[in-house]
Amino acid sequence: MQRVRAEYQPKLPKTLQHTVKVKQGDATQSVADQEEIQKLFPNTYGLPIVEFEVDDAPSRVEEPFNVGIILSGGQAPGGHNVVSGIFDGIKKLNRESRLYGFLMGPQGFVDHQYMELTAGIIKDYRNTGGFDIIGSGRTKLETPEQFDKGLKILEELNIKALVIIGGDDSNTNAAVLAEYYKAKGVDVQVIGCPKTIDGDLKNKWIETSFGFDTACKVYSEVIGNIQRDCNSAKKYYHFIKLMGRSASHIALECALQTQPNICIISEEVAAKRMTLDNIVSYIAYVVSERAKLGWNFGTVLIPEGLIEFIPSMKQLINELNDVLTEHADEVASLEEMERLQKVHSYLTPVNAELFKSLPKAIALQLTLDRDSHGNVQVSLIETEKLISEMVEKRLEEMKEQGLYSGKFATQHHFFGYEGRCADPSNFDADYTYALGYNAAMLINAGLTGYMSSVRNLTAPTEEWIAGGIPITMMMNMERRHGKMKPVIQKALVELNGKPYLKFASQRETCALNTLYQYPGPIQYFGPSEICDRPSMTLLLEHDKIS
Amino acid sequence: MQRVRAEYQPKLPKTLQHTVKVKQGDATQSVADQEEIQKLFPNTYGLPIVEFEVDDAPSRVEEPFNVGIILSGGQAPGGHNVVSGIFDGIKKLNRESRLYGFLMGPQGFVDHQYMELTAGIIKDYRNTGGFDIIGSGRTKLETPEQFDKGLKILEELNIKALVIIGGDDSNTNAAVLAEYYKAKGVDVQVIGCPKTIDGDLKNKWIETSFGFDTACKVYSEVIGNIQRDCNSAKKYYHFIKLMGRSASHIALECALQTQPNICIISEEVAAKRMTLDNIVSYIAYVVSERAKLGWNFGTVLIPEGLIEFIPSMKQLINELNDVLTEHADEVASLEEMERLQKVHSYLTPVNAELFKSLPKAIALQLTLDRDSHGNVQVSLIETEKLISEMVEKRLEEMKEQGLYSGKFATQHHFFGYEGRCADPSNFDADYTYALGYNAAMLINAGLTGYMSSVRNLTAPTEEWIAGGIPITMMMNMERRHGKMKPVIQKALVELNGKPYLKFASQRETCALNTLYQYPGPIQYFGPSEICDRPSMTLLLEHDKIS
Repeated sequence: MQRVRAEYQPKLPKTLQHTVKVKQGDATQSVADQEEIQKLFPNTYGLPIVEFEVDDAPSRVEEPFNVGIILSGGQAPGGHNVVSGIFDGIKKLNRESRLYGFLMGPQGFVDHQYMELTAGIIKDYRNTGGFDIIGSGRTKLETPEQFDKGLKILEELNIKALVIIGGDDSNTNAAVLAEYYKAKGVDVQVIGCPKTIDGDLKNKWIETSFGFDTACKVYSEVIGNIQRDCNSAKKYYHFIKLMGRSASHIALECALQTQPNICIISEEVAAKRMTLDNIVSYIAYVVSERAKLGWNFGTVLIPEGLIEFIPSMKQLINELNDVLTEHADEVASLEEMERLQKVHSYLTPVNAELFKSLPKAIALQLTLDRDSHGNVQVSLIETEKLISEMVEKRLEEMKEQGLYSGKFATQHHFFGYEGRCADPSNFDADYTYALGYNAAMLINAGLTGYMSSVRNLTAPTEEWIAGGIPITMMMNMERRHGKMKPVIQKALVELNGKPYLKFASQRETCALNTLYQYPGPIQYFGPSEICDRPSMTLLLEHDKIS
Repeated sequence: MQRVRAEYQPKLPKTLQHTVKVKQGDATQSVADQEEIQKLFPNTYGLPIVEFEVDDAPSRVEEPFNVGIILSGGQAPGGHNVVSGIFDGIKKLNRESRLYGFLMGPQGFVDHQYMELTAGIIKDYRNTGGFDIIGSGRTKLETPEQFDKGLKILEELNIKALVIIGGDDSNTNAAVLAEYYKAKGVDVQVIGCPKTIDGDLKNKWIETSFGFDTACKVYSEVIGNIQRDCNSAKKYYHFIKLMGRSASHIALECALQTQPNICIISEEVAAKRMTLDNIVSYIAYVVSERAKLGWNFGTVLIPEGLIEFIPSMKQLINELNDVLTEHADEVASLEEMERLQKVHSYLTPVNAELFKSLPKAIALQLTLDRDSHGNVQVSLIETEKLISEMVEKRLEEMKEQGLYSGKFATQHHFFGYEGRCADPSNFDADYTYALGYNAAMLINAGLTGYMSSVRNLTAPTEEWIAGGIPITMMMNMERRHGKMKPVIQKALVELNGKPYLKFASQRETCALNTLYQYPGPIQYFGPSEICDRPSMTLLLEHDKIS
């Protein structure tokens, strides 16, 4: 399989199949806080959007140049194709150009850990998942010391440009680095590539981040399989948590693909200021209504970050952070039940009540596991179990009141690592290859502080539009760790966006019927309608389906 | 996808593409306990193995006949194709023949819940996963009352033969039912079909049970994805539990496909009388050796049934069952820590020591959750967490002794429901369709007490051999719930079998290197070498690979 898949030749946009020249647009502005952003990026602010077009001039030989790449943050399917796209792009311009990969993420750049990526090495990674070709890491590239240390190895290797493949934070840092080198008068370009399975790095110019398509398809495959099981055995409620802490794009896309009975969207919870109790009531309502129809089975999708979107839970966690810091030693010395009582006694009444309503194991965990900053580790909470236990309790109460008479047995799942490193779908394989190839062209055009941009993604690959977007254009000022910082705006699920509206329009029908879809595994060799289809999110956003 | 996949026409063995006649072999014997089995099955014992061959006689019109089917037990990919194979088979013999499906498993047969399966209904389920066409259930068909109740509906619908699609227990019951009807002089035939993802219903004549191939491929896909993630991030040990309580075929097949660092085989644990401590030591050893090489990441596969194969754990659980029954009220009234101490005090020294070595959460669970017979619910034990916690503790001890200096962070996964209802691989789609079609021919040949058998499965489909095996032939006497019963011998992983030997031969290399394989998703439309390839287990057993 890996051997045959390696032979797949990703499709390139028509423009990139030729020699290209730059078409410049007008000067740009950041999405907000223009004055502050301009002040922070005096040398890279206001650059024009660029688009490549076919250059009909007689072809010329370009000077060879060397490129360094960094894979930053969590894995996403297609990373290896960004690498091979860059490689093929720079080699197309000049066979003498070289590509260097920094090992295990930004830290490899700072510590001068690298390898040259040759044709022989890249061959084995074409169209494969994972970032294992050079590894990835979560070190944040943000201090002048790191920039200067990195600069040394760039100069040593005669590297003309650095490509940073990462999410919103990493691309923000790419912009900061570009500005830093420019301000310093150093001739090194910095180009970003939009990566994250979470799908929260997107905007008018970046239609989707790579990896989202593949990861959602893998999750939808297994969710579909579970739903088929659920509908065959007819005896379990499956609570399925999906990766994605800061936005619910993955849960939404999977819900659109598989039509579960219930899917919670964090952004809706936040916007409507829903409580944990509201969520539990809603699920218990659906379970009891289905029981009336004779169905004691169903599926519930839950986004990983849900807890942090529930305003009351957020308040409770904030107060817990304070209480646990203030009374750390006292609390640590107590046995479980006493600890819960003591913490409870320190909380303000509203938070105390919510704390008391939580299942004991979860409440205990909130008083125990804390990160290096002393904060409650929200990511360790098994949200899918928390919610299913609370639903079970609610159903028991309803049973006593004669409002419910079904059976409620549960299974729990969490999908994340299953999809982050899957072999990319044809869509992601093509998209990432184009992003990489396009990055090589941006470098050749002498640009810095740009993100590689390939657009018009729901059209056939040939018609995709390739170019670059100044990263500063996507920025605004946000509070991070108590300080205002320039950052790329994170894209949350929009409640007036077409994907959410589509989901909301069929939510009731899906809850009270059994309309499961079973998308099956990603296919590489079949009809284009199956193999090359983009995500439902993208198709809806582009009005390609309704 | 579902639409396109529905158009797939499963390949049939050459023989079944023609009119067939029966070639009878010699009379058979059961695998053991011949005298007792013969006494219990006076009318269906000793029947010959039959094989179909092409009938060159001028074709004749067969009488129409009606068939009933039952899906029994856990889902397995391909069940719907058994149904469509039977349907196409009986319709081929006579368009007037009818197929009835009993709803939600054997209970539908007893309660006369059924539906007729018409061409229009079956069309939507061809080549799909799941048993949702008529549902499945776990009721055991074993009492004369059930048989007689079922007989009424068979007579009412003029059903000539009942096909039971199930695992070893269900097929055992099919044989008992066949004998019962025969003894009673009732003209109803009973035919079994070998189903179970666990792969433990196989022998000389049944090369594999259906669903094993697909389920293992789905698990291997996600294990491969996790391994790619593991090898990219290089910071976690992933403990992955795989479905399959009574045998380790699934874990073994997945290990062969994906080459994890560690895979525990329950049958080996039992044969070598390994303790939990031995297993923990082995894993801790591999982790520490990998740490010396600079690798603080890895993958560990664990079969779901492991605990019950560890002799000392089995003893502990047996004693716990006694202690908890004897002191039920006393234990139930105690708070957690006191309960653990009390239970501990009642255990014999060896078991007490083992009990004390268990992580607290697991020990508590063993004292709490009991099934309707009052027994400890072994299946609820999160074995993957139990083992990883014990390994962590062991590594801390080793660290104190200066024997280990790595990092050990873990992730846990359990895969089961993700694969039981996947769309069948081409192998399973073809195999199940042939099993069903073949069952129709067995019925037409007037046989009862037979299992549908399609063999030579590693050859091209055309060359597969179709026929029937008397179920009594696979039986021996075993103790079940305290009584000796005739049952089909369960196939455990053989420690002198080629699949295990292959695994064992590369175990050390896989542990101390990173040789992960990433099989990717099941493909339907690509080259035959990818789409039609049987399981590694089967290929090794048939000497097709080494």
